[in-house]
Amino acid sequence: MATDVIGTVRDFVDAHVMPLEAPFLLHGFKAVEAELERVREVARGLGIFAPHLPEAMGGRGLPLTVVGEVSRVLGRTPLGHYALHMQAPDISNTELLLRWGSEAQRERWLAPLAKGAIRSCFSMTEPEHAGSNPVVMSTRADKVEGGWVLNGRKWFTSAADGAAFAVVMAVSDPEAERAHARASFFIVPTDTPGFSIVRNLPVMGEGLAVGEAGWASHAEVVYEDVRVGDEALLGARGAGFAMAQERLGPGRIHHAMRWIGIAERCLELMVARAASRELGPGLRLGHKDTVQGWIGRSWAELEAARLFVRQTAEAMEHEGQKGARLAVSGVKLLAAGMLDRVMDRALQVHGALGMTDLLPIAFWYRHERAARIYDGPDEVHEQVIARELLGRAGMPKPARAGA
Amino acid sequence: MATDVIGTVRDFVDAHVMPLEAPFLLHGFKAVEAELERVREVARGLGIFAPHLPEAMGGRGLPLTVVGEVSRVLGRTPLGHYALHMQAPDISNTELLLRWGSEAQRERWLAPLAKGAIRSCFSMTEPEHAGSNPVVMSTRADKVEGGWVLNGRKWFTSAADGAAFAVVMAVSDPEAERAHARASFFIVPTDTPGFSIVRNLPVMGEGLAVGEAGWASHAEVVYEDVRVGDEALLGARGAGFAMAQERLGPGRIHHAMRWIGIAERCLELMVARAASRELGPGLRLGHKDTVQGWIGRSWAELEAARLFVRQTAEAMEHEGQKGARLAVSGVKLLAAGMLDRVMDRALQVHGALGMTDLLPIAFWYRHERAARIYDGPDEVHEQVIARELLGRAGMPKPARAGA
Amino acid sequence: MATDVIGTVRDFVDAHVMPLEAPFLLHGFKAVEAELERVREVARGLGIFAPHLPEAMGGRGLPLTVVGEVSRVLGRTPLGHYALHMQAPDISNTELLLRWGSEAQRERWLAPLAKGAIRSCFSMTEPEHAGSNPVVMSTRADKVEGGWVLNGRKWFTSAADGAAFAVVMAVSDPEAERAHARASFFIVPTDTPGFSIVRNLPVMGEGLAVGEAGWASHAEVVYEDVRVGDEALLGARGAGFAMAQERLGPGRIHHAMRWIGIAERCLELMVARAASRELGPGLRLGHKDTVQGWIGRSWAELEAARLFVRQTAEAMEHEGQKGARLAVSGVKLLAAGMLDRVMDRALQVHGALGMTDLLPIAFWYRHERAARIYDGPDEVHEQVIARELLGRAGMPKPARAGA
Amino acid sequence: MATDVIGTVRDFVDAHVMPLEAPFLLHGFKAVEAELERVREVARGLGIFAPHLPEAMGGRGLPLTVVGEVSRVLGRTPLGHYALHMQAPDISNTELLLRWGSEAQRERWLAPLAKGAIRSCFSMTEPEHAGSNPVVMSTRADKVEGGWVLNGRKWFTSAADGAAFAVVMAVSDPEAERAHARASFFIVPTDTPGFSIVRNLPVMGEGLAVGEAGWASHAEVVYEDVRVGDEALLGARGAGFAMAQERLGPGRIHHAMRWIGIAERCLELMVARAASRELGPGLRLGHKDTVQGWIGRSWAELEAARLFVRQTAEAMEHEGQKGARLAVSGVKLLAAGMLDRVMDRALQVHGALGMTDLLPIAFWYRHERAARIYDGPDEVHEQVIARELLGRAGMPKPARAGA
Repeated sequence: MATDVIGTVRDFVDAHVMPLEAPFLLHGFKAVEAELERVREVARGLGIFAPHLPEAMGGRGLPLTVVGEVSRVLGRTPLGHYALHMQAPDISNTELLLRWGSEAQRERWLAPLAKGAIRSCFSMTEPEHAGSNPVVMSTRADKVEGGWVLNGRKWFTSAADGAAFAVVMAVSDPEAERAHARASFFIVPTDTPGFSIVRNLPVMGEGLAVGEAGWASHAEVVYEDVRVGDEALLGARGAGFAMAQERLGPGRIHHAMRWIGIAERCLELMVARAASRELGPGLRLGHKDTVQGWIGRSWAELEAARLFVRQTAEAMEHEGQKGARLAVSGVKLLAAGMLDRVMDRALQVHGALGMTDLLPIAFWYRHERAARIYDGPDEVHEQVIARELLGRAGMPKPARAGA
Repeated sequence: MATDVIGTVRDFVDAHVMPLEAPFLLHGFKAVEAELERVREVARGLGIFAPHLPEAMGGRGLPLTVVGEVSRVLGRTPLGHYALHMQAPDISNTELLLRWGSEAQRERWLAPLAKGAIRSCFSMTEPEHAGSNPVVMSTRADKVEGGWVLNGRKWFTSAADGAAFAVVMAVSDPEAERAHARASFFIVPTDTPGFSIVRNLPVMGEGLAVGEAGWASHAEVVYEDVRVGDEALLGARGAGFAMAQERLGPGRIHHAMRWIGIAERCLELMVARAASRELGPGLRLGHKDTVQGWIGRSWAELEAARLFVRQTAEAMEHEGQKGARLAVSGVKLLAAGMLDRVMDRALQVHGALGMTDLLPIAFWYRHERAARIYDGPDEVHEQVIARELLGRAGMPKPARAGA
Repeated sequence: MATDVIGTVRDFVDAHVMPLEAPFLLHGFKAVEAELERVREVARGLGIFAPHLPEAMGGRGLPLTVVGEVSRVLGRTPLGHYALHMQAPDISNTELLLRWGSEAQRERWLAPLAKGAIRSCFSMTEPEHAGSNPVVMSTRADKVEGGWVLNGRKWFTSAADGAAFAVVMAVSDPEAERAHARASFFIVPTDTPGFSIVRNLPVMGEGLAVGEAGWASHAEVVYEDVRVGDEALLGARGAGFAMAQERLGPGRIHHAMRWIGIAERCLELMVARAASRELGPGLRLGHKDTVQGWIGRSWAELEAARLFVRQTAEAMEHEGQKGARLAVSGVKLLAAGMLDRVMDRALQVHGALGMTDLLPIAFWYRHERAARIYDGPDEVHEQVIARELLGRAGMPKPARAGA
Repeated sequence: MATDVIGTVRDFVDAHVMPLEAPFLLHGFKAVEAELERVREVARGLGIFAPHLPEAMGGRGLPLTVVGEVSRVLGRTPLGHYALHMQAPDISNTELLLRWGSEAQRERWLAPLAKGAIRSCFSMTEPEHAGSNPVVMSTRADKVEGGWVLNGRKWFTSAADGAAFAVVMAVSDPEAERAHARASFFIVPTDTPGFSIVRNLPVMGEGLAVGEAGWASHAEVVYEDVRVGDEALLGARGAGFAMAQERLGPGRIHHAMRWIGIAERCLELMVARAASRELGPGLRLGHKDTVQGWIGRSWAELEAARLFVRQTAEAMEHEGQKGARLAVSGVKLLAAGMLDRVMDRALQVHGALGMTDLLPIAFWYRHERAARIYDGPDEVHEQVIARELLGRAGMPKPARAGA
């Protein structure tokens, strides 16, 4: 069955999503949004829309390993995941709601989100605090009669432009003894008074006005006396940090699966260019052994990363997140680095053409540079692994925390 | 004197060019063009406008080593070189006209170009042929009574949008025995019938309509029966390739000098961020020894590259280009690689902020990726050096040329 | 069962082989050879001697994937493989004899070799010809009445010092049309007149006199009118190249499996050192995040390489060598590079101590530098992969073979 | 004059030192020691012996920049520096005695040392303490009537085997308030009762018995109630740490200058091999563009490192060590890394031959791995630079020292 789904997805991507690649690269998300809705309709008809979701929610209930194979196919083009409604941040918000949402929340927010009728955003990172340490956070949620009042400033609230609601992390219990028990999640409809998108952050040359960027946006959001009811609390009070951690594990695997697909496309483009570009009579770019070196090395690195991702997905299916903690960090670190190198080589093989948006390489080169930053930069994942191994070897914690 | 000029340039950049950085990064070249003209007027008043030009042409006649120091200061912000009229491709076209232009050409084109009254573009690379081998070229210049008729397609004709004239390379003597003697340069006013900008190439997300990009453009240009007079020939007939080579030597040094400035600014931003970013009580980002590693290594690599550039500029002053050929390739290769790594580390230190255009790092990260491609990719410069050393060691040429 | 074997091997290595590590590192192979024979006897008693061999030959008939797990455990100490009689080149020679040996050859040579009663060597590489292109070879085997006469010079005939016989590749059919059909394999007893070990090559500081190095030797061997009978021909006449290729596939996997074990030990030593080394009060080397970076990255790279090796071993079991050709090249390339980096980091973490033979790191650092060279250097494996992918993408062969 | 000296040295090395290279690589230092003494006599006759020393001491009083050029020539072969008596640790001990020695000390120790009549060793590093932090040290020098009694254990006391005296660092003032004022230097004749060489450390496979290694040794030394007179104190009491720092600056430049020479020889060997090695008819190894890449990149990195070293030597001549502190760290870091890469590429180009001691590459590959460790590992030099830059940018020290 898995094979069937993947074949169907592959044909669907070729037939329906690939044609949108060029207009998206040249004119942006809004220019293809309407057409994308049509394409999603096709996906629904094929029974492959949101295949990661349980069948009860309209999906196929695919296990994580198969989701990985689907993601690999979708990753080959920038709109692939959107076309099947597997795009960040909605896919992770869906998981949060599935796992922690009350019945009312699931009815009001999860139902339309799962169908792709609305979009959502995730509002955690703050300009003044390192994203790698979410314990330190300024946004406050003050308990009031019947609800909460939120105040604070977030940024990199991805896809906020046009979203129906935000999942917001805020300090609800500043006095809790354990720092990790101070924050909670809240669902905030974006039309709530006091919620405002200050701007879409200008990211790698793209900083369209609010309303013009849509899903492909990273917003700065101000929460000013935003009043929500008690029903806005998502999950347990004070459980925000734990929930965020739990959200991040699969999130990292989702990203890594997508990166495999991106890298495969980059390698494919690199090979095709090298095979066809003539340098002179009888001499192709691919005859150069420097270029062969890039291709051979990229293939091997990709293959190893792919196996590592797959193995980790399997481990998560069978042992859960806890058991796979080191592997998740390893995969995040390794796959992001592999992607970085493969994109760089693919760009170099294309020369000046590689710098243009006539191919998706330049798009990924600039936007996926963030792969080594978001959901924990390389350095944090190196530390997660190393501290675990060092601890097992008996190293005491340093005198001063955080050093 | 040199020190004086550099101090003046530094103050000028701080006072007049830096304030344009943010609007340029957020809104593009056209948004600051008028203001830039005012800033250039200030530079003229200070006697530092186009200081690389001979005094007779309104410059300061600075030697290449001092030009390098000026360039280093200007490179710190994306519009620095433009503000002093030292921007590509005008600086190299000026050199071509100074060296090879007839009296009439100098009067008509060089005079206004040197003053910054008009802009120019350089039209050599073609979509269908590898830029690293300019001997293979499709654009033709057919000799006709009293002039030439040009036909062909060029791309990456940088700064064509708004330029007054193009310096075009075309095959004028297809039957010449030596492949290197087949092409010539022509000056083509951009209002000549048959000259048309097909589009501004979408480069790293920027592909504004013709007329909206101005200097910051990379055009695809079609030459369709473009008729020019005999006076359009620049330099000797058949000398195009030799002139292009001669143009490239100083061009590569100019680029490398600018990259030093860019890298210095990136290092400065990296240090400032690391010194100020708090990770927790009493803990700054700069206390992390991983970050210290990036800073220390960047400083050392920058310093070595800077000395290599300076030494090569000196060699070019005293021994001319021929004597400095290996060093020029070495500098191009090494400085571009150093820049790549320093930009990458600077971006990583800034985390999500590094991905935004609130700082110039992301701008350089995407646009200066081309530093390892233009004017000969890394691989070509490695070969130039290696083949010279291998030849000295007695290696015969391979059986088949080009292998 | 597999798990049982591996547990037994692990305990055996800890109890019996590890104690020989220090004397081997300080005094060389000959100093521990007698003791090693005793240890091998223990292994025989435990039923784990030569477990990769068929049960009929005294082994366990372990499948390649389990052999990989065993090898990983043995790789942790330099004498591990020798202790279980899984050392190169005997393991590969055994495979050659098993697959291609006549009944007489199996009886005379394979039987005692399988038992560990004698040692063998493999004589293919020649000083004057690149090992990466075994088609070009000077050693000749001339057909004479009732046998063959061999003449030539080989080097890097590993383990020749003390071997009972050599498996020699020589050109038997110089006139064969296909270059790949010109060479054959011969079994040459080392006491045959005309066979002489010129010297043990001085490899990385170790160049003991013949007779003093034993198994840990790389000999230069001269064949001068060496006369052998017809029964010396191993496999079909002219099949030498094809057999060598077939031998190399599993050989590369055996090496990669061993490298995994070496890298695991290096990582273990690195972690233990970082966890225990005090830099000052309350500050361990492992508290440095640079060191954590090395550890984290090494673990992730090791894990990915390990999965790649395992997956390729599985593919070879099920699809045979042909189907796994690209993967074998990928594994060879990737695992050797990973090992190189992990050894380097482990050495750096130990500082001056890392340079000494008080730990096995320095031994591996110098000897396993060859991992990126033997059985095809990195560059050859990059090409194997790239040429396959480029061919699939339709690139024609270059005009000139070999370019 | 400088040019003359260098030409003379070059000819001397070619004529007299190069012939000792092969026997040294194959048979070790002791095998060529007698011959080396003869060669030194030739150097004395040519007036180039110990040319870095003042003329009054029999040298040429060469400035540091010229010493650098000499060192570059000597570095081309492993015994070059020894042949001119510029080898570590004697060169640095000479500097210590020149700068800090009392008249009596200079007469007794410096005079014969400068002439090459005796050898010395330097005894600072201890097994139990990180060499990068010499403030922490166990060896004690207790003041007694008329002298001192030393107790402790040192290792990596290089060249102790056969040395006439050791310069030893020991804690003389454990109660001094400033940690940096607790240690002093002492001159200890190696025949003093209580001084014993426990062993020559086995470094990269070389661990000859005491008496058999000579200069090429790294000893572990025990000081057990070693009684010396008051005249044994070298420099001021408590000034040991400051003197060691001062010794390290020029020491690092000396090393870097030697590395330039080593790298130049490696590049030369790499080019010669690539130019001559035939892969097939008409195809040389050097025709491969991967190999050209290694050569081109190595040349450029070497050239930049060479300029950086020269510039820093100039700065030290004119501004002294203080002014050149960052540059010295930068040079140490950069030149060691460059050497590492160039050696690695040179070895790879030679394939199996590169692993042997038929060329000096393998010798340097294993022994100069220490270049990234001794006199401060890479990480310490990165920190020296980074902390200075971060401090200038206003970063406060971390709450906890040493973090």
